[in-house]
Amino acid sequence: MRSCKLYANVCIFLNVKCLKRILLNATIGGKEVLSMNFDQRTVTCGQLRGADAGKTVVLNGWVHRDRNHGALHFINLRDRYGITQVVVDDDASPELQKVASELRMEYCIAVTGIVRLRPDNMINHDMPTGEIEVKAQKISILSKCATLPFMIDSENAANEDLRLKYRFLDLRSSGMQDRIRLRHEFIKAIREYLYTEGFYEIETPTLIRSTPEGARDFLVPSRKYPGKFYALPQSPQLYKQLLMVGGFDKYFQIARCYRDEDARGDRQLEFTQLDVEMSFVKRDDVLSLMERLFGHVFKEVMNYELPAHFRRIDYYDAMNTYGCDKPDLRFGCEIKDVSDLVQKSTFEAYKTILANKGYVKAICAPKTEGFDFTRKYLDEIAATAKVYGAQFVPFLKVGANNALSGSAAKFFVGMESEVCSFMGAKEGDVILMVAHENWKKCCASAGAVRSKLGKDLGIIRPGFEFCWIVDFPLFEYNEEEGHWEAAHHMFSMPQAKYIDTLEQNPGEVRGDLYDMVVNGYECASGSIRIHDVDLQKRIFRICNFSDEEGEKKFGFLLNAFKFGPPPHGGIAPGIDRMVMIMSEQSSIKEVIAFPKNSFAVSPMDDCPNDVDQKQLDELHLIIKKDEEK
Amino acid sequence: MRSCKLYANVCIFLNVKCLKRILLNATIGGKEVLSMNFDQRTVTCGQLRGADAGKTVVLNGWVHRDRNHGALHFINLRDRYGITQVVVDDDASPELQKVASELRMEYCIAVTGIVRLRPDNMINHDMPTGEIEVKAQKISILSKCATLPFMIDSENAANEDLRLKYRFLDLRSSGMQDRIRLRHEFIKAIREYLYTEGFYEIETPTLIRSTPEGARDFLVPSRKYPGKFYALPQSPQLYKQLLMVGGFDKYFQIARCYRDEDARGDRQLEFTQLDVEMSFVKRDDVLSLMERLFGHVFKEVMNYELPAHFRRIDYYDAMNTYGCDKPDLRFGCEIKDVSDLVQKSTFEAYKTILANKGYVKAICAPKTEGFDFTRKYLDEIAATAKVYGAQFVPFLKVGANNALSGSAAKFFVGMESEVCSFMGAKEGDVILMVAHENWKKCCASAGAVRSKLGKDLGIIRPGFEFCWIVDFPLFEYNEEEGHWEAAHHMFSMPQAKYIDTLEQNPGEVRGDLYDMVVNGYECASGSIRIHDVDLQKRIFRICNFSDEEGEKKFGFLLNAFKFGPPPHGGIAPGIDRMVMIMSEQSSIKEVIAFPKNSFAVSPMDDCPNDVDQKQLDELHLIIKKDEEK
Repeated sequence: MRSCKLYANVCIFLNVKCLKRILLNATIGGKEVLSMNFDQRTVTCGQLRGADAGKTVVLNGWVHRDRNHGALHFINLRDRYGITQVVVDDDASPELQKVASELRMEYCIAVTGIVRLRPDNMINHDMPTGEIEVKAQKISILSKCATLPFMIDSENAANEDLRLKYRFLDLRSSGMQDRIRLRHEFIKAIREYLYTEGFYEIETPTLIRSTPEGARDFLVPSRKYPGKFYALPQSPQLYKQLLMVGGFDKYFQIARCYRDEDARGDRQLEFTQLDVEMSFVKRDDVLSLMERLFGHVFKEVMNYELPAHFRRIDYYDAMNTYGCDKPDLRFGCEIKDVSDLVQKSTFEAYKTILANKGYVKAICAPKTEGFDFTRKYLDEIAATAKVYGAQFVPFLKVGANNALSGSAAKFFVGMESEVCSFMGAKEGDVILMVAHENWKKCCASAGAVRSKLGKDLGIIRPGFEFCWIVDFPLFEYNEEEGHWEAAHHMFSMPQAKYIDTLEQNPGEVRGDLYDMVVNGYECASGSIRIHDVDLQKRIFRICNFSDEEGEKKFGFLLNAFKFGPPPHGGIAPGIDRMVMIMSEQSSIKEVIAFPKNSFAVSPMDDCPNDVDQKQLDELHLIIKKDEEK
Repeated sequence: MRSCKLYANVCIFLNVKCLKRILLNATIGGKEVLSMNFDQRTVTCGQLRGADAGKTVVLNGWVHRDRNHGALHFINLRDRYGITQVVVDDDASPELQKVASELRMEYCIAVTGIVRLRPDNMINHDMPTGEIEVKAQKISILSKCATLPFMIDSENAANEDLRLKYRFLDLRSSGMQDRIRLRHEFIKAIREYLYTEGFYEIETPTLIRSTPEGARDFLVPSRKYPGKFYALPQSPQLYKQLLMVGGFDKYFQIARCYRDEDARGDRQLEFTQLDVEMSFVKRDDVLSLMERLFGHVFKEVMNYELPAHFRRIDYYDAMNTYGCDKPDLRFGCEIKDVSDLVQKSTFEAYKTILANKGYVKAICAPKTEGFDFTRKYLDEIAATAKVYGAQFVPFLKVGANNALSGSAAKFFVGMESEVCSFMGAKEGDVILMVAHENWKKCCASAGAVRSKLGKDLGIIRPGFEFCWIVDFPLFEYNEEEGHWEAAHHMFSMPQAKYIDTLEQNPGEVRGDLYDMVVNGYECASGSIRIHDVDLQKRIFRICNFSDEEGEKKFGFLLNAFKFGPPPHGGIAPGIDRMVMIMSEQSSIKEVIAFPKNSFAVSPMDDCPNDVDQKQLDELHLIIKKDEEK
């Protein structure tokens, strides 16, 4: 601070000319003046074609690659729109030669020059601008670039934290450029379609009441009201329902949502969803809107044709056939219940499981060129299943004429043809079996085996397979806390036939719930909502939520339901996840401009960070020094 | 909780039929089943015309008004799309008559009926559906409505907190419906236009590093890192600059921003801005983009033609001529410097002010039919000016042949014609004078008088007057803290001619800053940005911001500037304010679906609110019980 003031004082006593020289020498003045008065582009780096030959143009962009052949310089100049080859000929002026020789990768420059056709043998058919090059007449350096921490366009080589620390450089890579463009176009196409169907985009508040359900809320301390907090929304759920009560009929929003969850898998603290709600609708109205919407969007953005209707799969069918409620339909290997076969076999261990009301399921892995079911691989399979509960994975290798070998073969002696026929197994296939007394665990174990097979056998078809999972149970039993809770959320409508008898057997109640699944990922979740105070209170009670608690947390919704609410329902596709799938990435971080890392930290700006004591004081907060509780 | 469990247990022991009856009687089961299987609309309430006569239709909507003439019921049924008259004829079945007689305002209902032409003398030309009515055959109540806290469509009668508490009802009013639709269409038109110019919409993070400058940040405590915080963005400023460094060239975002300011005027904790940034641009590129954008948007949304270019006014000219940097150009009353006249006069008090390097300014209020400059009104004018510093407001009433009367007349004896000519004053006009030794205070006092005259004389033209205020000073002197600070923000570029000599006289430095002003409101603020580390550090130092502090808070931006940043600039129009102006409202609360009140509280969901101790513990926070410091 002191030195700064001293510097300023000194400046005042120097005459202007002298100062100017000092500053120029300090690299500031001259360069800045230059870059403010820079030669502005007349064309982008993706624009020039053969027909432009002879034109004088100005390009602005980054030095993508440069090669010197003696006094001949080739510069690949890059901007968002493409790459253009700039040439400094060996007959260029000494000044131009000098600037050209100073250029380094990622320098930001302005080039004035003449477009000329490349010689026939130099045409680059892989580049849209490959017919031409620009003969430079003037090059100005707009800004220099320090040594790069990693090469642009080698994103996979750099470790993630380094990429995130220098995200502003990582974003220059063609991969990130493409994906951020795809995300933009995806959301643009969504909006354009929903506009045509008469939806209003309405912004809901993001400083709201904390009503934690399921995930934790992020809290925002109020300065004005000591000890009170706003919360960031986990979704606009209640507000979109209130918009329906408010008569807005068809609402959507590209909404930022927040969940303070422990890092597991590919989560971000903040994420983006397409939030949709409609009045006077039934389930199929919502489903068919989404089919029209994504049909349009995939055609528009990817030129990919989706079917007019997505397959609808009952929740229980999905669990039984694919071992999960988000099946990847890009390959077969469907799961079959082999209880009957096992009953007839001599497989006593499995028969015991069946006797205990358990389940036995099997998958037929198809013969795959170049893939062997080695002992090691079968161990991997068993380990995969074990995570979900199945203790071991007996297998049958199918030989010629339905001959069976493998660890389970001895139990099915004499039943070989029946087994192969039931499983649809042919020579070279391998049948894998899992069992568990708990239905869900048996399904999940089989599902994990199926997923692993899909990946390892390379049998996953390219493309996008959408389906709906419908008729979910409304409640799940929370064993730990000893009560029922909402499987989705507490605002979803039970199906009509269960309404009168909800309390009798909550586990049997199916809801008007639906998930949209794409390539094995749950991409959207929705429901028809409750719009009746008394029914809403019954759901609260079943979920062990007292009337007082319901009133305290959701009183404003219950209050709204007293004033002529319309029947309504909606859905919320996840934007990050869908763009990730569309761009064939395995992490949503690849489709977010500035994500946090897996530890909820931004290595670039190093947040979360300490704040000033003054800020804490104003918020009436004291940080508890934890005694490691 | 206990009673809830008891209830559930009881239910289990009742047989289904019995339970059903109980629930029906408790108003739940029957109604819910009904509303889930409700008759879905085949048309909206705004759709039917004479040509539809004879068709059987289903309508869903709200009872807007209903009138009974004996057994004849007229129901105005409303939805987002309009109002349709439903008639229950006196020959209707007793069941239908009964339902009709049960209807109350804002009941949500489904109506099945036949469209018929109204008798000629009953046609309502003010309603798009006024040619027809629907003869009801069946009416179902989808949900009832309790006694309304205020009448829908009488928004001005209800007090604001009541409107906000029942916002879901207030939103049904035609005013709120119109304004939320306008807001939707405004943002839609903005997006559609920026798409055509090749802008990408890119989402920037909202859990960021706290770098408080100017306003206070909202903080979000980290659960994982005790004592550390994220902050909500005051704007995406730094991230949009990083997107430019990342090569995205043209960016926009409809961005939610947050400022924890003390309630003053019409502020909300969260607000929405159109955030725009462009690479390789100079000032006029940004200005002309905005002119094209809002030209398109106003034409599209309001069918209002804006000029191709908005007037550009130098900051000092604006202050001198309009007394503020956000002039309302819908009326004249321009301010003139009358120092020369005063010097020649016998106005000693003002001559003393001039001798002290002060300023004297005057405004000519035009003669206005039915408006009198009474003593009382002149006192009001003086009080208005006094707020901004001018101690009194001498005045001159212009009579026939330039005769002057009024408190200042005696000082200008013999100069009457000169005064009138200089001021362009005619018979019946009133000249008002203000003076102050401080230029800004003199301008502001005169500006306040001008604004008051505009409103009170009714001389403000209808329509929208856009202008640019340009060439702002880059720095302002903070008298309290005794150092210079950024007038806009620290990332704005000084104009080229000042760059070498910034430190010599910061007060004289003009920046490449611009504000877009509409009808007297500052609607957007922007600048060409600095993209040079050394220049950025010089600005920090001038603003009394040490290198260490700059590095700590903005190190990531300075770091990015080392890697070939492009010249760039941008702007950020306020969405809430612009929609407020377009809908001729005086508060942004009128154009936000769920705003907070002036005390930063949402009366609907009563936030900010207390949170559970468990939540505080997880965040390692203790609330300080303030000793009223």
